[in-house]
Amino acid sequence: MALALSLGRRGQGSCWPNPAVGCVLVKNGRIVGRGWTQPGGRPHAETEALAQASEQARGATAYVSLEPCSHHGKTPPCAQALIDAGVARVVSAIEDSDPRVAGQGFAMLRDAGIEVTTGVLSDQAAMDHAGFFMKTEQGRPFVTLKLASSFDGRIATETGQSKWITGPEARRAVHAMRARHDAVMVGAGTARADDPSLTVRDLGIDRQPVRVVVSRHLELPLLSQLARTASDIPVWLCHGPSPDPERAAAWQGLGARLISCALQDHRIDAADMLHQLGQAGLTRVFCEGGSALAASLLANDLVDELVGFSAGLAIGAEGLPAIGAMGLEELGDAPRFSLVETRDLGGDVLHVWRRPVR
Amino acid sequence: MALALSLGRRGQGSCWPNPAVGCVLVKNGRIVGRGWTQPGGRPHAETEALAQASEQARGATAYVSLEPCSHHGKTPPCAQALIDAGVARVVSAIEDSDPRVAGQGFAMLRDAGIEVTTGVLSDQAAMDHAGFFMKTEQGRPFVTLKLASSFDGRIATETGQSKWITGPEARRAVHAMRARHDAVMVGAGTARADDPSLTVRDLGIDRQPVRVVVSRHLELPLLSQLARTASDIPVWLCHGPSPDPERAAAWQGLGARLISCALQDHRIDAADMLHQLGQAGLTRVFCEGGSALAASLLANDLVDELVGFSAGLAIGAEGLPAIGAMGLEELGDAPRFSLVETRDLGGDVLHVWRRPVR
Repeated sequence: MALALSLGRRGQGSCWPNPAVGCVLVKNGRIVGRGWTQPGGRPHAETEALAQASEQARGATAYVSLEPCSHHGKTPPCAQALIDAGVARVVSAIEDSDPRVAGQGFAMLRDAGIEVTTGVLSDQAAMDHAGFFMKTEQGRPFVTLKLASSFDGRIATETGQSKWITGPEARRAVHAMRARHDAVMVGAGTARADDPSLTVRDLGIDRQPVRVVVSRHLELPLLSQLARTASDIPVWLCHGPSPDPERAAAWQGLGARLISCALQDHRIDAADMLHQLGQAGLTRVFCEGGSALAASLLANDLVDELVGFSAGLAIGAEGLPAIGAMGLEELGDAPRFSLVETRDLGGDVLHVWRRPVR
Repeated sequence: MALALSLGRRGQGSCWPNPAVGCVLVKNGRIVGRGWTQPGGRPHAETEALAQASEQARGATAYVSLEPCSHHGKTPPCAQALIDAGVARVVSAIEDSDPRVAGQGFAMLRDAGIEVTTGVLSDQAAMDHAGFFMKTEQGRPFVTLKLASSFDGRIATETGQSKWITGPEARRAVHAMRARHDAVMVGAGTARADDPSLTVRDLGIDRQPVRVVVSRHLELPLLSQLARTASDIPVWLCHGPSPDPERAAAWQGLGARLISCALQDHRIDAADMLHQLGQAGLTRVFCEGGSALAASLLANDLVDELVGFSAGLAIGAEGLPAIGAMGLEELGDAPRFSLVETRDLGGDVLHVWRRPVR
């Protein structure tokens, strides 16, 4: 199952809107097939593994990191494929929360006389599929907020210098994190200040995450890395009601997708925006700031994972804060996260926190 | 030698202005004496170990975490005591940088026919004696700056709430850190806002560190924990030129020691202040903020070790920053530190940084 989970994670960031599933077929103690959800979400992991195993699937045990699907979507149900292939036993990590499946995959297998075990390494599976489950259950993607800051929580000097606060290993880790998400998201201020490309570089990755920029008025330079590459790598712009029509047309002309969002206190309503991104298929979003967007997500309790890179330098109070104004009145109201991991990453501190189970 | 170093560290915080030295006497593979510098700085470690070994010191090897002293201070020189006791060999971790010793202790031993080895675990010894060396070489104490903050580097909410950002284990670690320093130091703002006692609690420690408060105008409440306890546990107040005479008299009446410091840009000159604290005998100072004092120490390159406790909560930009305005113009001018350690401490991140070797 650990192998199935590991194979499944290979699909993270590339198989959305489908879950990134892994499957291993074992017969007589030997692996006869391995598969994971392919880019775009098809073929499914089970299909891949069965194709590899061919006749050897008969009588094998299938280890699957998620309940096999039972519904006819764009592919026939995987539960049926496992039955047809003559698999003797299915071991699954966790039940699918998609109401079209939700136990029916297991029922279909059991009805066909296949032995089914579930709940194996389910904690890890719940984490791996957190984005897919979040979208299925709450209609929005799983949100990871990454902030790279100085010791004192600043992301730039007063004059906007931010290159480089953290070191090359931390920056490389950020690219690896981007690659495991469906989309990378920044606020308009960051897009204007840094002119980022938001792509995954130097990791041998072909498929790039969607670049999402949150800009109420679409005040984004048309001579920018994002504009220049919008026809090749998706750029989605989340804007407020009635943006400037010329700017909207210009970005559409460049190939960007425009997503109109509701407002909340004169800012883009983060909950509505994420709901729309979920409707558009995203399951895992990696937000890299800036201050205002980070504050908006945190204040609305929309951050599932918090990733910090802290460098050993002090910038002082004139510097740009990592998190903007949150309107917090009581310390007890501050959003709290549970520490998952901390370690030295090339001389910077990496610290990862998750929303506590409530 | 590891044992001698470990014993030596027992004296940290209590034996200033003397170095915290450890000594182990070994004869025929058996420990016959152990000692460390006693509270107040006397007896010295060697004296303690020799007294314990008595006649068995003859022919023994002495492991000492610092070069034995060669000068007549308030005690006779330890080098002479080792010679008189008939020790056959002395193994030392590092040479003393005090110009009254500086190799003369080793010379005295060698002249008496004792075999001398030095440089054993010298890196660790240099760290253990960093405060004493700093005072000897630069005239100021070693400064540890501790900041306990939210994920985004805030030490309180807009309304001043700061209890509690970090958890009980982190707070307990702070008490253990205080105990290993000669003095605990805060700025006037922190003293007014938090009314701290700055004592070491719940660790079975008798001897308390000096409490140093930096307050240009001595605007400190006379009905406070510090005022109430000033006659029992030292309170030193670092103030600017010509403080209000009534306040000065009131604090002196309570038992506080007043230290008049020069100004730099209308603030207390941190370098002059630390020089005076060094003259007063302090070798290790533990500064716990607030924002302005932290910024002043950092901006003047007077921080030797930086200790962070980061909690998994977000306060936002209205909160009080851990480090105040530093007047930084270029990111390249920001003071940088090297990561020594990071770990999970009861759900908070502990991260320790040191001034890089230049």
